[in-house]
Amino acid sequence: MPLNKIFDTLVHNGTIVTVNPEFDIIKNGWIGILNGRIKAIQAQDSNTNLPFANIRIDADGGIIMPGLVNTHTHLPMTLFRGLADDLPFMEWLHEHIFPAEAKWIAPETVETGALLACAEMLLSGTTTCCDGYFFEENVAKAVQRSGMRAVLGQGVIDFPAPGVPDPSDNVAYAQTYVDTLQGMTALITPSIFCHSPYTCSAETLIKAKAAARKADVLFQVHVAETRGEAAQIPNGPHESPVTYLDKLGILDSKTILVHAIWIDKVDIEIIADRDAKISHNPESNMKLAAGVAPVPALLDAGVCVGLGTDGCASNTNLDLFGEMDTAAKLHKVMGHDPTLLNARQMVRMATIEGGRAIGLSHRIGSLEPGKRADLIVLNTRRPHLTPLYHPESHLVYAACGSDVSHVLVDGNLVVKNRKILTFDAEQVMAKIVSQYQPGIAKF
Amino acid sequence: MPLNKIFDTLVHNGTIVTVNPEFDIIKNGWIGILNGRIKAIQAQDSNTNLPFANIRIDADGGIIMPGLVNTHTHLPMTLFRGLADDLPFMEWLHEHIFPAEAKWIAPETVETGALLACAEMLLSGTTTCCDGYFFEENVAKAVQRSGMRAVLGQGVIDFPAPGVPDPSDNVAYAQTYVDTLQGMTALITPSIFCHSPYTCSAETLIKAKAAARKADVLFQVHVAETRGEAAQIPNGPHESPVTYLDKLGILDSKTILVHAIWIDKVDIEIIADRDAKISHNPESNMKLAAGVAPVPALLDAGVCVGLGTDGCASNTNLDLFGEMDTAAKLHKVMGHDPTLLNARQMVRMATIEGGRAIGLSHRIGSLEPGKRADLIVLNTRRPHLTPLYHPESHLVYAACGSDVSHVLVDGNLVVKNRKILTFDAEQVMAKIVSQYQPGIAKF
Repeated sequence: MPLNKIFDTLVHNGTIVTVNPEFDIIKNGWIGILNGRIKAIQAQDSNTNLPFANIRIDADGGIIMPGLVNTHTHLPMTLFRGLADDLPFMEWLHEHIFPAEAKWIAPETVETGALLACAEMLLSGTTTCCDGYFFEENVAKAVQRSGMRAVLGQGVIDFPAPGVPDPSDNVAYAQTYVDTLQGMTALITPSIFCHSPYTCSAETLIKAKAAARKADVLFQVHVAETRGEAAQIPNGPHESPVTYLDKLGILDSKTILVHAIWIDKVDIEIIADRDAKISHNPESNMKLAAGVAPVPALLDAGVCVGLGTDGCASNTNLDLFGEMDTAAKLHKVMGHDPTLLNARQMVRMATIEGGRAIGLSHRIGSLEPGKRADLIVLNTRRPHLTPLYHPESHLVYAACGSDVSHVLVDGNLVVKNRKILTFDAEQVMAKIVSQYQPGIAKF
Repeated sequence: MPLNKIFDTLVHNGTIVTVNPEFDIIKNGWIGILNGRIKAIQAQDSNTNLPFANIRIDADGGIIMPGLVNTHTHLPMTLFRGLADDLPFMEWLHEHIFPAEAKWIAPETVETGALLACAEMLLSGTTTCCDGYFFEENVAKAVQRSGMRAVLGQGVIDFPAPGVPDPSDNVAYAQTYVDTLQGMTALITPSIFCHSPYTCSAETLIKAKAAARKADVLFQVHVAETRGEAAQIPNGPHESPVTYLDKLGILDSKTILVHAIWIDKVDIEIIADRDAKISHNPESNMKLAAGVAPVPALLDAGVCVGLGTDGCASNTNLDLFGEMDTAAKLHKVMGHDPTLLNARQMVRMATIEGGRAIGLSHRIGSLEPGKRADLIVLNTRRPHLTPLYHPESHLVYAACGSDVSHVLVDGNLVVKNRKILTFDAEQVMAKIVSQYQPGIAKF
């Protein structure tokens, strides 16, 4: 790459954690971006002789890494952040969350709640999420406005749902949603999100998966979140939710199984064999006392596992840095082995593996020439990040979302010095606090 | 309290989480401080008619709460932050941490490392810590300079240690240290820290506890951190480390047992009966795969449990907000019960119960008239803290250290708008990065 080559954007003067297959770390380097794509990554000796670019972003000696990928969210649920905690699961769900959703979920609240989520995600270094909710076309509007990348799944459930009052329309509604969104914008990929094997009939699951296959989009489904789930599936008994879904033909490389806590060796073999993907949501699973997914065993079996936060009703925040930290520590203590889920594995899980889990690893998840330029810069001149011996260790065990200073998505600078450039986050917060919070608080 | 009463400092316009016995929360209130002490706490209708004060601190609608209390630290180990992770315990300790300490721990590095720790703690809302290390008089110098409050224990171990090359001097050294520091400054309370029952003989433990009793100071000791600890105690076999220490007469209300993971019902009864205190360090315990302390059972038995981070070699950061979050989630999932360790319990554990565990709850840990004014203000105008229904829930499940904007210790403003006023943290970081990091990195 000759030094006079022109880039649109140059990010320089930082330690580049590439997350390429070799996990190369460039102690002081620059990344040249052209037309939204990474064109070159190189070590640099000084800040002189840098190639020309229209925009130069100085990482100030910090860490440059791929934007994080959140493989499971329900973005509009930011509106219910911390509404009810520390309760028995059924009381939490039926006396707080469901009634709040029934009363407050509408196109406008969905869009506003999703925008709040985008603000939070961007400010904590997440550039891509995989969402599932209702009125998903309004989630798409918010995500598009924010400049983030996302896979957005319209919800399918065999009960009257926000926007889909007649459950018999649910798959058709999702199909129309997918058809409408497909190809509409480069950063948003539509998807179908079936709630679970116990809230969707076999017929619904089969129809929804067929629609997803036809449109060649990701199929998302909550599976095996609670111990008793197999018993809750209609027309049982079933061996396990995973074998049940497999018998319905649901499992393939474009199906992501969310939670997958109560799975056994046979289930893991099936998942591996079908190349189905896993979204691991440790903080939500811990907070709701759902259980601990057997992630080390899944990884041993070669299964692709991405990280997710779940929605803000169950986890309270969308910070994937915290999620990396918690996941690494949880599996070490559960497995009585401090070598489990090491820092590199965790960084991969929150970036390239998350990208793979939602079908985007050809475009994002690592900093390599040819990839789309989704990257974040962390300010490491902070007491809690000093000294710094191993960048990947700090990313997992010491950094937090608020250490992110700049964010680029598809080559565009979306956050600069912790300020969101694409929309007015203050206004979104003010609207939620004044218009929604007082009413929602009454639940 | 008449409105014309003069205060030194007034903190106003915030939601006050008092952590008093009733856990009163004042939606919009002010706190008047005189001579380092809280004189009055009141609700306010507006920002007009506030009482006069020399310094007014506007909480800007955020949360005002007691400063956090970290019941277990090794402050100078910030120097080894992230030096070695994800390793088998013995390899981590003997091939990385011990050699790094042997080469680098000296009065000056101890003081500098402790200053870095103080910067990190203050910026994440911790106003008091309980420390145990070597060259503890140098830790005291750093803490005093920072303006923090602390209980600082000189280390005692039956091996040659930094500053105490001859182990037979260890208790005498600690005794002299305590005598020197006692009463020297209002904010620092000396203490004796015996490393553990497997690294200190029965004779050392008895002598050290006698010295602590004579000086009426806190006695700290690591106990039952690993499963095999009972077998490592000299002159065994012993039933358990706790019963062993009890037979030596070590357990009383001024002894804090750090970790206390591998303890059974009998141990818990003994601890409760002796009114010994517990420092619970979940993140360190998880990261080292040590195990999970039976905190719900300890609380059921009426034992006082405070939270701790442990040193930065084992936990990587000193953020007690993260520790509250992790502890709450860990015990919910381990106990299969989402109601365990609720948000109020966690806030108490990180404040008043921590204060009680280290013998300072008469002075700190809650915002009540008569207490010393150790308090922090959190900025809640952040996407990840919006909306806000229950302040205590956000403190545990959504907030992080970087949300702290102002910090007062003993009535003195120590952090203002995230800037430390008492010392130059940038200079401390620069010194560590240039003078120590390159050498330490070679281990």
